[in-house]
Amino acid sequence: MSYVIGVDIGGTNVVVGLLTGELQLVRKAKQPTGTANGADFVLGRIAGMIDALLQEEGIDRDELTAVGMGNPGIIDPERGIAVMASNMKWYDLPIAEKLSGILGGIPVFIDNDVRMYIYGEAVRGAGQGFRHVMGVTLGTGIAAAMINNGSPYYGGSFMAGEFGHIVMEGESALCGCGLRGCLETIASATGIARIARERIAAGRSSLLADWFPDEAQRAAITAADVSRAYDAGDQVAIEVMDFVGTMLAKGLSYAIPLWSPDVIIIGGGAANAGERLLAPLRRGMQGIVHPMYLDRIEIRLAEMNDDAGVVGSAAFAQARAAALPA
Amino acid sequence: MSYVIGVDIGGTNVVVGLLTGELQLVRKAKQPTGTANGADFVLGRIAGMIDALLQEEGIDRDELTAVGMGNPGIIDPERGIAVMASNMKWYDLPIAEKLSGILGGIPVFIDNDVRMYIYGEAVRGAGQGFRHVMGVTLGTGIAAAMINNGSPYYGGSFMAGEFGHIVMEGESALCGCGLRGCLETIASATGIARIARERIAAGRSSLLADWFPDEAQRAAITAADVSRAYDAGDQVAIEVMDFVGTMLAKGLSYAIPLWSPDVIIIGGGAANAGERLLAPLRRGMQGIVHPMYLDRIEIRLAEMNDDAGVVGSAAFAQARAAALPA
Repeated sequence: MSYVIGVDIGGTNVVVGLLTGELQLVRKAKQPTGTANGADFVLGRIAGMIDALLQEEGIDRDELTAVGMGNPGIIDPERGIAVMASNMKWYDLPIAEKLSGILGGIPVFIDNDVRMYIYGEAVRGAGQGFRHVMGVTLGTGIAAAMINNGSPYYGGSFMAGEFGHIVMEGESALCGCGLRGCLETIASATGIARIARERIAAGRSSLLADWFPDEAQRAAITAADVSRAYDAGDQVAIEVMDFVGTMLAKGLSYAIPLWSPDVIIIGGGAANAGERLLAPLRRGMQGIVHPMYLDRIEIRLAEMNDDAGVVGSAAFAQARAAALPA
Repeated sequence: MSYVIGVDIGGTNVVVGLLTGELQLVRKAKQPTGTANGADFVLGRIAGMIDALLQEEGIDRDELTAVGMGNPGIIDPERGIAVMASNMKWYDLPIAEKLSGILGGIPVFIDNDVRMYIYGEAVRGAGQGFRHVMGVTLGTGIAAAMINNGSPYYGGSFMAGEFGHIVMEGESALCGCGLRGCLETIASATGIARIARERIAAGRSSLLADWFPDEAQRAAITAADVSRAYDAGDQVAIEVMDFVGTMLAKGLSYAIPLWSPDVIIIGGGAANAGERLLAPLRRGMQGIVHPMYLDRIEIRLAEMNDDAGVVGSAAFAQARAAALPA
């Protein structure tokens, strides 16, 4: 039998999955990344997790055809280098070669984590059957990726897809990137919570204010709380979802004529808002996206949130290993 | 010797160029397209123009390796079909196969004219040496194309690159596409002239008003007139260029994080405005395009406006013919 490994690494946790050659997830494991201990420690830990998974399933390392890893930041998938992974403090590190060395030469392929997540959705999730898949993740921030005929779109310096850092007219919240008014200050899980908090702070009455009577507590309001208030008919929550969906529609109205996706997949934590967000999003696109696009594009929620990164990394590594010269 | 043909066809005229295998333009010819006579007439005319060029240079048809043609509208380059070329009234027509038949089986490749124009600039013009080339044409309308590592980006149904139909916040001019406020109503040659006319009609004093004293004449004001007034220090003309450059900067601020070009080439008639437009464009990108992109992207004027379409079509056909199974 042949197997493949998918790794989804973040600043906090790393998930390693063992998949069959048919990309069925057999078993996975999760551990703290241990970022502070340095890259060699982290890669050693990942190799250890891989070996443990193999051992638990009674599989030899020889049966592994490839290892794929989705890594936050700017990744050079051609040379296997983490160019700028700020939250790991990895700069110009040849991660693929290092991990391959630790694993005795098994081919390792790395890429940006969002590309791998959307790649997973494209080949095994909500994007199956579509040739041109755009995916957007609405989490702490916003990121996007485009997969065309099974190939991720990279652009210059592998920096394409920064959909979250489109600056929205009339918006001015300071973004982590240093610009003001970026889409990710609005349409992320963080943005939804921030806007709800601001409306309450401005004196609007809301269930959210009742649930969090102490002002000091209100920093803890999440996008999920806003959904909860929405479901209870709260006017502020309804307005916030409407505003955020409309802004996301504007963002997509810029992306659609440039990328021309067949399907748009919305994932990440804020996607849990579901129709609360998708309804104003669909309304908001009317009149600003040409029917030539709108009539043919499907908008779907991600189907495999937890596993998309692991499955995508594994699938991508398998495809790349198959393309290696024999 | 081997030769290749590039054809740049529009609703009004068709230009046919004969190039060496090294893509040096040997000779070209231009004729009215004769669109009203139907596709068979037009293709027959093109075949006749090709034969005349060959004869004038004493070259056999056997020495032609490929014919490329850039065609306005939605083109399926994989199947060689004009899907929707409205100004030719060509719908789902197998143009490549038809023209190849008339030419005795020489391989013919067709693609969208803007993609071929930008492809020409990418391989032989202002984009030489860059891997990820974004091109924008500012003419009667606005179009764009992205060439990545020598391959045009198509997207779903080959409809990517409609940069002119991004709807700009706060704008409301009716676009030919049916939407309101599209970038092409503003930052095209047509848009520059329209905005100048509107400011004069609103009572602003301007050299343009002096040059076109009769209101009925003012429909004839062109983007070139606005440039002329700009050079004479006319305040309205300066404001129009500033506004248009700023709007184009906003449009590019949406495209850059999504496509991540290494270079942006500005072509088409309105590109003749040169620094009058590029200076406000560069200023306008500050604060809305992240320095991570801005510091590495070059903005250049197209270098081969008249020949880019012909050379691009020929170069693209040559590349595609080389990839055909032997």
